[in-house]
Amino acid sequence: MPQSKPVIDEGASLSRQFLETRTLTEALTASLSDADATIQSMEDASPAKWHLAHTTWFWETFLLRDYAPGYRLYNERWPYLFNSYYEAEGDRIGRFSRGLLSRPTLTEVLEWRAHVTDAMSALLDEPAHADLIALGIAHEQQHTELLLTDIKHALFQNPLGPAMFGGSPEPAMSPGAQPLGWHQHPGGVIMIGAQADGFAFDNEGPQHRALIEPFALARRLVSNRQWSEFIADGGYSTASLWLSDGWAWVKEHGISAPLYWRDDQAFTHQGWHPRDPDAPVTHISYYEADAFATWAGARLPTEFEWEAIGQSHSAAAGNQLDGAAAPAPCGGEALFGDCWQFTRSAYLPYPRFTPAAGAVGEYNGKFMSGQFVLKGASCATVRGHSRASYRNFFYPHQRWQFTGLRLARDV
Amino acid sequence: MPQSKPVIDEGASLSRQFLETRTLTEALTASLSDADATIQSMEDASPAKWHLAHTTWFWETFLLRDYAPGYRLYNERWPYLFNSYYEAEGDRIGRFSRGLLSRPTLTEVLEWRAHVTDAMSALLDEPAHADLIALGIAHEQQHTELLLTDIKHALFQNPLGPAMFGGSPEPAMSPGAQPLGWHQHPGGVIMIGAQADGFAFDNEGPQHRALIEPFALARRLVSNRQWSEFIADGGYSTASLWLSDGWAWVKEHGISAPLYWRDDQAFTHQGWHPRDPDAPVTHISYYEADAFATWAGARLPTEFEWEAIGQSHSAAAGNQLDGAAAPAPCGGEALFGDCWQFTRSAYLPYPRFTPAAGAVGEYNGKFMSGQFVLKGASCATVRGHSRASYRNFFYPHQRWQFTGLRLARDV
Amino acid sequence: MPQSKPVIDEGASLSRQFLETRTLTEALTASLSDADATIQSMEDASPAKWHLAHTTWFWETFLLRDYAPGYRLYNERWPYLFNSYYEAEGDRIGRFSRGLLSRPTLTEVLEWRAHVTDAMSALLDEPAHADLIALGIAHEQQHTELLLTDIKHALFQNPLGPAMFGGSPEPAMSPGAQPLGWHQHPGGVIMIGAQADGFAFDNEGPQHRALIEPFALARRLVSNRQWSEFIADGGYSTASLWLSDGWAWVKEHGISAPLYWRDDQAFTHQGWHPRDPDAPVTHISYYEADAFATWAGARLPTEFEWEAIGQSHSAAAGNQLDGAAAPAPCGGEALFGDCWQFTRSAYLPYPRFTPAAGAVGEYNGKFMSGQFVLKGASCATVRGHSRASYRNFFYPHQRWQFTGLRLARDV
Amino acid sequence: MPQSKPVIDEGASLSRQFLETRTLTEALTASLSDADATIQSMEDASPAKWHLAHTTWFWETFLLRDYAPGYRLYNERWPYLFNSYYEAEGDRIGRFSRGLLSRPTLTEVLEWRAHVTDAMSALLDEPAHADLIALGIAHEQQHTELLLTDIKHALFQNPLGPAMFGGSPEPAMSPGAQPLGWHQHPGGVIMIGAQADGFAFDNEGPQHRALIEPFALARRLVSNRQWSEFIADGGYSTASLWLSDGWAWVKEHGISAPLYWRDDQAFTHQGWHPRDPDAPVTHISYYEADAFATWAGARLPTEFEWEAIGQSHSAAAGNQLDGAAAPAPCGGEALFGDCWQFTRSAYLPYPRFTPAAGAVGEYNGKFMSGQFVLKGASCATVRGHSRASYRNFFYPHQRWQFTGLRLARDV
Repeated sequence: MPQSKPVIDEGASLSRQFLETRTLTEALTASLSDADATIQSMEDASPAKWHLAHTTWFWETFLLRDYAPGYRLYNERWPYLFNSYYEAEGDRIGRFSRGLLSRPTLTEVLEWRAHVTDAMSALLDEPAHADLIALGIAHEQQHTELLLTDIKHALFQNPLGPAMFGGSPEPAMSPGAQPLGWHQHPGGVIMIGAQADGFAFDNEGPQHRALIEPFALARRLVSNRQWSEFIADGGYSTASLWLSDGWAWVKEHGISAPLYWRDDQAFTHQGWHPRDPDAPVTHISYYEADAFATWAGARLPTEFEWEAIGQSHSAAAGNQLDGAAAPAPCGGEALFGDCWQFTRSAYLPYPRFTPAAGAVGEYNGKFMSGQFVLKGASCATVRGHSRASYRNFFYPHQRWQFTGLRLARDV
Repeated sequence: MPQSKPVIDEGASLSRQFLETRTLTEALTASLSDADATIQSMEDASPAKWHLAHTTWFWETFLLRDYAPGYRLYNERWPYLFNSYYEAEGDRIGRFSRGLLSRPTLTEVLEWRAHVTDAMSALLDEPAHADLIALGIAHEQQHTELLLTDIKHALFQNPLGPAMFGGSPEPAMSPGAQPLGWHQHPGGVIMIGAQADGFAFDNEGPQHRALIEPFALARRLVSNRQWSEFIADGGYSTASLWLSDGWAWVKEHGISAPLYWRDDQAFTHQGWHPRDPDAPVTHISYYEADAFATWAGARLPTEFEWEAIGQSHSAAAGNQLDGAAAPAPCGGEALFGDCWQFTRSAYLPYPRFTPAAGAVGEYNGKFMSGQFVLKGASCATVRGHSRASYRNFFYPHQRWQFTGLRLARDV
Repeated sequence: MPQSKPVIDEGASLSRQFLETRTLTEALTASLSDADATIQSMEDASPAKWHLAHTTWFWETFLLRDYAPGYRLYNERWPYLFNSYYEAEGDRIGRFSRGLLSRPTLTEVLEWRAHVTDAMSALLDEPAHADLIALGIAHEQQHTELLLTDIKHALFQNPLGPAMFGGSPEPAMSPGAQPLGWHQHPGGVIMIGAQADGFAFDNEGPQHRALIEPFALARRLVSNRQWSEFIADGGYSTASLWLSDGWAWVKEHGISAPLYWRDDQAFTHQGWHPRDPDAPVTHISYYEADAFATWAGARLPTEFEWEAIGQSHSAAAGNQLDGAAAPAPCGGEALFGDCWQFTRSAYLPYPRFTPAAGAVGEYNGKFMSGQFVLKGASCATVRGHSRASYRNFFYPHQRWQFTGLRLARDV
Repeated sequence: MPQSKPVIDEGASLSRQFLETRTLTEALTASLSDADATIQSMEDASPAKWHLAHTTWFWETFLLRDYAPGYRLYNERWPYLFNSYYEAEGDRIGRFSRGLLSRPTLTEVLEWRAHVTDAMSALLDEPAHADLIALGIAHEQQHTELLLTDIKHALFQNPLGPAMFGGSPEPAMSPGAQPLGWHQHPGGVIMIGAQADGFAFDNEGPQHRALIEPFALARRLVSNRQWSEFIADGGYSTASLWLSDGWAWVKEHGISAPLYWRDDQAFTHQGWHPRDPDAPVTHISYYEADAFATWAGARLPTEFEWEAIGQSHSAAAGNQLDGAAAPAPCGGEALFGDCWQFTRSAYLPYPRFTPAAGAVGEYNGKFMSGQFVLKGASCATVRGHSRASYRNFFYPHQRWQFTGLRLARDV
């Protein structure tokens, strides 16, 4: 939910952002068949077609239905299928039944998309709707990333290891042999949260002061090479490195490597390929990140520490998503990009946080228990979507996102 | 597994049967999209595409690979995907992961089918393979029926209630008001099991004697109207009518009507339609059939009793599958057709039964625990597939097949 | 439920049987603490205290409450605790909550037992109640055996391996090296089911004819030594030996030996002791018995075949329970005793079977799905309880009873 | 784990505290039978006997074994039974198998206790062990509280509703009609964490600064009367009041009231009694507390806010456990006592926190994910055990502790 403040478009009008976002979603799925776009591999993930439809439902429900004079729902039975979790918007099908929706077809969903994109043109330039439109764009960008991570998980289930994009991953930008440097911070009282001059989600505010101690944050993400050392040193079989819940998770699921690792290969959007030791490790859970940090004699940063460093970095730099190409971490010294970075901060409300009224108030606030905050952006994040105050959040066992690890230490 | 005896083709050569069966499978799926053919709604059911592929795998594995000189597997990685349960044929993907196989595509599977159908032509007329080919045909016919019941279950999950075929179900053939008649049998020693002059599965033999007591078997299947009376009389809430396992099943799953019933509608291959009270009830479990029989003061027949009556009826008569049209029970006095009929006989080996050697020996014998025998044929059974000695079998809680109920009583 | 026929007491009046049975139940539990008698190790098993109470509830509910003038329930809240599964007798606590009943105490339950045993004296000699009393005695004897197998399972969970009885198991009676002999049977029409001159459960009737083929039945049970050979030959890792459900069970639970085996030891009512290779193997499931028989090139008998042989053997011979001592199989040529013997017959109703009216009609009939018949008697069966027509029944995965295996073969 | 600093005994020597703690544990269980002390009602709870033994194992393992010259383990097989979760101390039985340990008996455990209490006398006055002894005392006091809440849960499962103590709960101290007052705090930088002059757990440090905003904290806990209003207003059926995980929990488990409520009664250590509307509500989950606060237009405090107020209150005041009597919340204005109070703070490490070396390092740190901090003390907390910096923690769905709710608000 946007804060009530003027939306400033840095170089791109809302209209243009809207169209670029809609177009990107569709371009990314161009190589998918109706069947590819229909399957669902676990409850946490959704079919690609569902993402295409749900983002369209969002525009239709929160903008067109309420503000476009005379607009009629494209299909009155589809909201039941494509509402995600908005209790205020009525019932919906079970989350793990999304993968059974062979109808409407991918073509029908794309026709709906075109219809809604077209209908939206009448509202895009009205300042009264700017906040809601900015929210809708950010929402669709989030689903762009989920679409990519969800379909990766679905294709991974197929023993044939189908590729969504051709070619091979690029080699990592920089050798891991380079010495690890640190960003230093002297501590003190800092300002946390979204500034008043651009869109932000409600959970990034209100802006407020926080007190932090001196610390250092690594200049690079942990690499596959380092992770292999952790494994070779018995990382996954040493109880003392793990949180209690993490150790139980390791035991129950027989975890012994990041998701998508097999021998010296990794599954990517381009199929199975040899793992690059210099690329950042990705697809790890909070439990794994925490155990690695303990093994390395370091720790995870808090979300405030990360943000203190992040405020002086460009959120638009680094390896992020620029178009319909295979996302893959490639390393380097950018703070943003490659992988979402675990913090040791639980995802909780900031002081004086209040969710917005109405259904969009369900966007963020109701998820504030049991999850951890991740900062930065990943190779699958639409460039321009994230910022220093951005708070991504997942449960500690989840690892199908492009999640990675940047170490911190006390100084 | 076929008995070792000459196969007599009654009016149709093996070649013609083979081609008709292959063609029918494909014709039935003509209206399905790649996505429709990919989804899997439960572990018991398989995707339509999987059935198309598995039946092709069967020909390739048991005939072409072993007997067609120089034949090379169409794709060496596909057996892992399309082996069903043959341990002797190696590993395979988890049964409930079949619905994640968006690749190979429906088109690719159909091309494989054409390739294999074509390659088989060299073997179809060789007497040495006749038994195995007859088995393959029967196998594919079984999957034709499963394909129909599985896709029905999958489409049913979709709140839109998509139809696989157009039009509406035909009205039932005969009013339920007609008095119920009975087939009488004096009991005595009868011969049970497949005769020596045609194809039969291994579980239908060896032929052997059985001793039965006098009994009567109803001339008609129980109708929807009768079932509604059972419900109105509290059938689903009266513990004393139920087997202990059945009552636990009713309680755990909140069962209160046959599968696919909703208000006065039923889900069919043609979508949702009003239920015809005079049509036979279908999609009931063994537990429900047994409880109904108890409520009605009758019982289920044994498999021997049913077969004793069935031997004097034409197995090719009644409402069975003749082509690519929507299957639906319609009532009448034929013994075969409309619905598979529960017996109170557990599915167990006949005296001196031995499974065949090799992988095809896994066809039937290893399922001989925990299941019940059903006799007859259903509206989704390929006409010509069944016979009096035929033993279909399912677990007592399963009801996604066209299952129905013919009462018996002691006399 | 008893058939309506005169009960003939062979050498023991009902009164004496009643008192002996009550006394034996109590003597068996003399070494148990209140805590021992309270714990429940799985849903299939019940606490010893619960058995002591449930058998008392049976007398109070079906005899004293209905027929003893002026009798008042000892405690009006206890039936809710100690009804097992009689729906007609009202609600009851969840089956797996029995192990949470620390109150009433063991002492209180024993006082209740004494009270009810005493009150019963007024009814024991009334011919009108003879059938129901004979049923109650048989019922309590069944619970005597369950009490022994349930407490064995509970004590087994304790890493200390506590013994219920002192001493060590006796060595097996006869060396396994002796050649295996066979009981031969020519086949034909035989009479099956309970005769009219003594107590029998309703599921043993009505008496009826059955037709069997020539066969042979082994003179001895399969021994631990033979079972070790099965294991050494890869029995538990050879899919082709197993029923499909059995193989899934082996895989899911990591089964690799009979229950209570560990290295060369076995857990007994006398604690952990070295396994005697010449003693009959016990605590095996139907799946295991069937796989062994397949491996041995033999098969399990049907219940009719077993009964055909059993009719000429004394059901009171062999190793059965005579008093408060540790039960353990010891081998030999008796047909009855040592272990209940799996048949390949499903537990189903005999022709013209009808359960009795009222709550006692729930005794047997409602369990007629999914289970297999076992014949004979075990070392934990009260001597005198079983007979040739006796039908014990368990699910194919259960193995906490003294279950064993006698091979059969076609001749 | 204690900080390395001198332990100052405020009015009680360590020796005296040790003996008082040991004695209290035993006095509380005086009314329990061996069976009462053996049962386990859920995985989260442990048997009373297990608590008696585990606290004894702690002294034997961490003090006697390592520091008492010549000490030999009382029973070498018991550590396997009574280690709770210390991976460094080796294997142990499954957590939900504790309720199957009928042996050792309660008497044997009490004898072990006496033996260990006696053996400890040689170490109690050695300054070198003071920190570890202070930890052991605090550890045993925690188990005293768990013993009380666990046995309450176990007895609650019994339909007879047995009482652990006689008599009835006292009426609440003060009428709920009194206007609610607030503790005000101006915000600013405060010191958080344990001071250097007494025992504290490792998770209470290091002491550090925190920045908080102005707020107010209610002078009283929320009462049963207020909770009834929440229920009457549809609290449990209004999705918008709940966290997403909380709403799923309500739906899955059919939650509609606090644990132990039934009609207008509540289950207590004294059995079932009418609920006092003026007493504080207790046995609520974090989800419920959060939903209530939302409904009330307030919020939960953070752990820092609570501690800021708590630093000026006596931690030894209020309704806490003074001896072997039934604990029950009674209301009033004390900040400590009656119920543990939920904060909206996740249980996470303080800046520069490091767990201690060795097995005792597993005491707190490894639980720092997924749980919430509770502050204060309850009616079942041994008086003297808690302090302002104390951090109790539980998962958001757990509610078998004496948990309650004190509202906070922004000012």
